[in-house]
Amino acid sequence: MIKLKIISVGKTKESWLEEAINEYLKRLKPYASIEFLWAKNDSQLIDWTSKENSVLCLDPLGMLFDSSEFSHVIHQKIQEGGARLAFVIGGAEGLPSQLRDQYTLLSLSPMTYTHQITRLVLIEQIYRAFEIAKGTKYHK
Amino acid sequence: MIKLKIISVGKTKESWLEEAINEYLKRLKPYASIEFLWAKNDSQLIDWTSKENSVLCLDPLGMLFDSSEFSHVIHQKIQEGGARLAFVIGGAEGLPSQLRDQYTLLSLSPMTYTHQITRLVLIEQIYRAFEIAKGTKYHK
Repeated sequence: MIKLKIISVGKTKESWLEEAINEYLKRLKPYASIEFLWAKNDSQLIDWTSKENSVLCLDPLGMLFDSSEFSHVIHQKIQEGGARLAFVIGGAEGLPSQLRDQYTLLSLSPMTYTHQITRLVLIEQIYRAFEIAKGTKYHK
Repeated sequence: MIKLKIISVGKTKESWLEEAINEYLKRLKPYASIEFLWAKNDSQLIDWTSKENSVLCLDPLGMLFDSSEFSHVIHQKIQEGGARLAFVIGGAEGLPSQLRDQYTLLSLSPMTYTHQITRLVLIEQIYRAFEIAKGTKYHK
């Protein structure tokens, strides 16, 4: 079973976001389990990230992919990580430079998104990535 | 008062999306009113769009902007349109080629988003655009 983590700083509990994310978690069940981890601060974020085998950090200045390329990249990273992959989202001040220098940076858009929208877009793209790999009609 | 329209095909009523969008509509009140229009099909979408003075069409193959550039572009378009601007989002099959050929195409990301997520990202970027123009701390 593929196990993904989404590690970010500072928990927020917008009810609309939980509802939307739960919908995608349900859809993702046949493909992967997703665990959300909330770091208290940047140093905990760096510490937790250092323990992961395979990491993708989200940053507006990272590489831009279309959804098919993203599907390819994350499947490659999941394989490298032995069915494990951690996504890291920075806090209000963005990604700590220590992570920015060390890991592959991925951008969902050149635009700046709120953390909440980043989380939603990411989880939908993860779901889409599995549908693309499976060749379903979800992505056309 | 600035009046914006978001014209798209096919109404969807996810409760999480309504809650999220209502939050941004509330925040946008001091800046602009936003009207959502739901076309029944592509020909109605084309018809409604043709009646607008200032139009931006959303398409994954459109121009990519960061949030500051987007703020600049939409303020320019709002001025051209006499305090009016319409955003057009295509249906499940994407934007009709007639619109794609005629109007400025704007991309929120090279990735393919669902219509629901497109609407949410768009409205947050519109709100951000006004905050950027005002120079508040929302965007940093």
